[in-house]
Amino acid sequence: MEQLAELSYALDTFYFLMAGALVMWMAAGFAMLEAGLVRAKNTTEILTKNIVLYALACIMFMFVGYNVMYPGADYEGGYMPVLSFLLGAENAADVFQAGGEDAPYYSARSDFFFQVVFVAAGMSIVSGAVAERMKLWSFLLFAAVFTAFIYPIQGFWKWGGGWLNAAGFQDFAGSGVVHLCGATAALAGVLLLGARKGKYGANGAVVPIPGANMPMATLGTFILWMGWFGFNGGSQLKISNFGDANAVAAIFVNTNMSAAGGVVAALLVVRMIWGKADLTMALNGALAGLVAITAEPLAPSPLLATAIGAVAGVLVVFSIISLDRLKIDDPVGAISVHGVVGIFGLMVVPLSNTDASFGVQALGMASIFAWTFITSLIVWGIIKMVFGIRVSEEEEYEGVDISECGIEAYPEFGTRG
Amino acid sequence: MEQLAELSYALDTFYFLMAGALVMWMAAGFAMLEAGLVRAKNTTEILTKNIVLYALACIMFMFVGYNVMYPGADYEGGYMPVLSFLLGAENAADVFQAGGEDAPYYSARSDFFFQVVFVAAGMSIVSGAVAERMKLWSFLLFAAVFTAFIYPIQGFWKWGGGWLNAAGFQDFAGSGVVHLCGATAALAGVLLLGARKGKYGANGAVVPIPGANMPMATLGTFILWMGWFGFNGGSQLKISNFGDANAVAAIFVNTNMSAAGGVVAALLVVRMIWGKADLTMALNGALAGLVAITAEPLAPSPLLATAIGAVAGVLVVFSIISLDRLKIDDPVGAISVHGVVGIFGLMVVPLSNTDASFGVQALGMASIFAWTFITSLIVWGIIKMVFGIRVSEEEEYEGVDISECGIEAYPEFGTRG
Amino acid sequence: MEQLAELSYALDTFYFLMAGALVMWMAAGFAMLEAGLVRAKNTTEILTKNIVLYALACIMFMFVGYNVMYPGADYEGGYMPVLSFLLGAENAADVFQAGGEDAPYYSARSDFFFQVVFVAAGMSIVSGAVAERMKLWSFLLFAAVFTAFIYPIQGFWKWGGGWLNAAGFQDFAGSGVVHLCGATAALAGVLLLGARKGKYGANGAVVPIPGANMPMATLGTFILWMGWFGFNGGSQLKISNFGDANAVAAIFVNTNMSAAGGVVAALLVVRMIWGKADLTMALNGALAGLVAITAEPLAPSPLLATAIGAVAGVLVVFSIISLDRLKIDDPVGAISVHGVVGIFGLMVVPLSNTDASFGVQALGMASIFAWTFITSLIVWGIIKMVFGIRVSEEEEYEGVDISECGIEAYPEFGTRG
Repeated sequence: MEQLAELSYALDTFYFLMAGALVMWMAAGFAMLEAGLVRAKNTTEILTKNIVLYALACIMFMFVGYNVMYPGADYEGGYMPVLSFLLGAENAADVFQAGGEDAPYYSARSDFFFQVVFVAAGMSIVSGAVAERMKLWSFLLFAAVFTAFIYPIQGFWKWGGGWLNAAGFQDFAGSGVVHLCGATAALAGVLLLGARKGKYGANGAVVPIPGANMPMATLGTFILWMGWFGFNGGSQLKISNFGDANAVAAIFVNTNMSAAGGVVAALLVVRMIWGKADLTMALNGALAGLVAITAEPLAPSPLLATAIGAVAGVLVVFSIISLDRLKIDDPVGAISVHGVVGIFGLMVVPLSNTDASFGVQALGMASIFAWTFITSLIVWGIIKMVFGIRVSEEEEYEGVDISECGIEAYPEFGTRG
Repeated sequence: MEQLAELSYALDTFYFLMAGALVMWMAAGFAMLEAGLVRAKNTTEILTKNIVLYALACIMFMFVGYNVMYPGADYEGGYMPVLSFLLGAENAADVFQAGGEDAPYYSARSDFFFQVVFVAAGMSIVSGAVAERMKLWSFLLFAAVFTAFIYPIQGFWKWGGGWLNAAGFQDFAGSGVVHLCGATAALAGVLLLGARKGKYGANGAVVPIPGANMPMATLGTFILWMGWFGFNGGSQLKISNFGDANAVAAIFVNTNMSAAGGVVAALLVVRMIWGKADLTMALNGALAGLVAITAEPLAPSPLLATAIGAVAGVLVVFSIISLDRLKIDDPVGAISVHGVVGIFGLMVVPLSNTDASFGVQALGMASIFAWTFITSLIVWGIIKMVFGIRVSEEEEYEGVDISECGIEAYPEFGTRG
Repeated sequence: MEQLAELSYALDTFYFLMAGALVMWMAAGFAMLEAGLVRAKNTTEILTKNIVLYALACIMFMFVGYNVMYPGADYEGGYMPVLSFLLGAENAADVFQAGGEDAPYYSARSDFFFQVVFVAAGMSIVSGAVAERMKLWSFLLFAAVFTAFIYPIQGFWKWGGGWLNAAGFQDFAGSGVVHLCGATAALAGVLLLGARKGKYGANGAVVPIPGANMPMATLGTFILWMGWFGFNGGSQLKISNFGDANAVAAIFVNTNMSAAGGVVAALLVVRMIWGKADLTMALNGALAGLVAITAEPLAPSPLLATAIGAVAGVLVVFSIISLDRLKIDDPVGAISVHGVVGIFGLMVVPLSNTDASFGVQALGMASIFAWTFITSLIVWGIIKMVFGIRVSEEEEYEGVDISECGIEAYPEFGTRG
């Protein structure tokens, strides 16, 4: 039966790697979505941010974050993991081990790969919210701290076996650990950064600033939708038996149905409000459905998953409108999609998962929010004091592509009068 | 050997889910292809159509279509399945079953996922053909009826075990069931809708209306090409033994070769006709090759697959030219690519598959066409009478992005004189 | 245990096919990258080149190349394989065999699929370097010869079991066989073709010619990054046991880390040189990291992989600057990314792989370079004499989209001043 164990190990590893590749692909989705939703003059910079933050997240997580988030059994139920350094220094042999009795049932490296693309996804949420006005290098500095410490420590609380996990907090694939965490870091940044010039008029008027490239934004949404099958489907962690295979299939279906529910609900709501089929809201509806189902994509029936997505699609529209009224300027709606809907996703887990309670879900949500908000505010604050976080008014007017990157995104296309 | 059965079940489920994810990805392909081939002023609307029709197809198929298409063994050989409602109400337990003697060899939910992305692909064919002049909400209403009833009923005839299957009709992955069906619904819509203003001049002249974004159209084609490995490769339904593994591999190769043959043949033909390497025809050649091999991607040798694709590539060019002469205005060539070539694909099955006969293939083709054309004409007709299906002349001139969506696709890029 | 063998065979075949699908996807990546880095007026032509070269590569490799590259055991250690013709004529039965004692452990067709997408990737490297001034049909003629003979013969030397393999040359997934080979063919073409008009000013000044669409270029890079998991990960050829599963997982991680190292290093270098975060150099850094790790993605630790990628990222920046000083005009930097860095990748193999020696790596590198350079020069030379390889000055000024394809890439977007 040794050979059977090998096959099972191989199948689970392969499944895990393909799921990881799909999550990695979400980095392209965030890049395209954000590049489509900002103005042409700020497009190169946001593309740069996205690819560099992905690379940086991988490096920081390898050096520090992975060990922080998964410190091993000694830290079970704990609040603060050891800050060990460098993936696999002493584990190098284990990693390539043949997988004995207590060994993982898939390659340890495939676990690192899956986790590292998650941290990058979390960080990608931030880049959209601070778009069009933040200094590139200050952003990257924050990204390094976020991916090395802020994200991994709260991730440890749940997925690394820390106190939130011990308390019974349920967050299957990260409505809280990934999405709320990323959105909270974004919120802290936006509050210190302020709104874009011209976004809010004298009398409280909200000035629409349309994105420059709708096909790109739509492509980004489709990429994220596809990648989410890896995000949620891979979070089952195993597929090599009846129960797990059925679970992964159910997760695929529920993930898809929730996104579908979000699209249709958001579209109907905006039609009722504005009389138009606002594409960007349909896209946000899809993403809201995806975020909402992420906390519990397994237990709901497909019908409940569709309903959760639909409510999320309605919620995201009103959240985006409300944040604009509060003059919290988030060019791509990331705080609403990932933060507000992330909270919603956490709070509906008890509807289908009997292991969850509203109280513990609220505790987890509040803990992730508080930790991320406070630490992010401190880090953004220090960066602001030392380097500044906002480009000059002139640079903002001219576009950050020129000042930060020296390259225009569409250098040949004439712009309108 | 229980464990062996579990592994086999898990591998087939995983294979099925990955194939489904690739077919889902085709939704992005259709969206990008169509967004690239229409004019800038109608781009947001076609993007909206594509993401919403995908979502709608998922919801309608969950509520109605899946049970219509796969009503179970009681309806074997039948003409009209029961119209049952809601996926899995009473099957919920079965779906998560451990898979006994007569149980499916993969997760039932993975089957739903695979089938639901197929129905969405079928519907995507329609959106391109009616582009640039149809009312968005009328289109979505048709999409709901098509994905709930029109597609599933003829799908039941073949894949659900109905009378066409009993008659020996061969359609491996859906040249008929998916592509001809979608194209026929499109044709019915186009006939009621009429051509775009300015497409056909006074003296029978055909006015070329070039697409606004060739990189998008090319990306869409590549996405569809990639997704087709899931579309055809997944239609083997199983991979966990020598025969099925070899079959899936042969399907991948044949699918790829047929598309390659289509590209090269279409390019050579347009060079002979117009002296230019017309990119859009090369793209249509790729898609024609893919559609043509879909009815039988397993039996042909790679050489025959290439030849089938090449003939399809020639055919699609002449079909597009001919439809324009008939003043059937199809902005993206969908009726030619999926309809005319879909028929060709069905009719060449007997070349390599000895279970197929020309007579039965023709019967299947005619039945699918007749059913879809008549029902679609009725549904489009009712929608036309009640709500109208065409935007006003003014809206068409201005572009449907403004009138239907209120959002321009490229708001900053100045347009030419 | 027959059933166990079947499962193992099926898993390896599925893994191989998914890896192949990811490599096929790289064709879209090259197309988008190159379409984003050229000027708008030359975009349709480079898209046409990319999709047609992929199709052509598939057809030529099926007819000739595959048998040339993998002539079987009789040619072990040889210099020149038999030039046999047409895939599988006599092997058709074998291909669908049940896989006996000596049979391959995966479907033969899945091997063909994996290999054919590799040859297309190799050829894609060329199209970028000769962009914006080469005649389309002359390019395609070269592509046919390259994919049928030039690439397969040197590929046979290593992967087909030829003399370089016998000599102990190490090139896991093709830093040499694919990337250096493609870049060398590109170099030969560029030398005969000359620089674009206006690229090099009177006093040796290098005139920057920015690409027209940065989101496209970034998307292309992300696609290539994702596809590379198939390129390197699939080159393990097997996953169905502990050792191979661990190996594939390690390859995924190392491939990802090397790309990440390349991005960050390239960005830091350009910031030091120019004070700006040059996006195109960050993209080239990612690709350089990917190319560099391709010769040995298994043996290094993740830390070493990151370091290799970082050095590659620095190297590619200086290489691009140096080639411009030498007036070797390569619009997308393909010769630097794939050639210079490909050599670097080959030469660092001995750092982690004790089976490799610097001498043999240098021998392999020199052999691939010499063979490809000389044969390419001859083929380009003949094509130049017979048909010409460069468009007229007028056509170059106007853009090759009009002269070669008759279709503009962005017909509606007004251009600047």
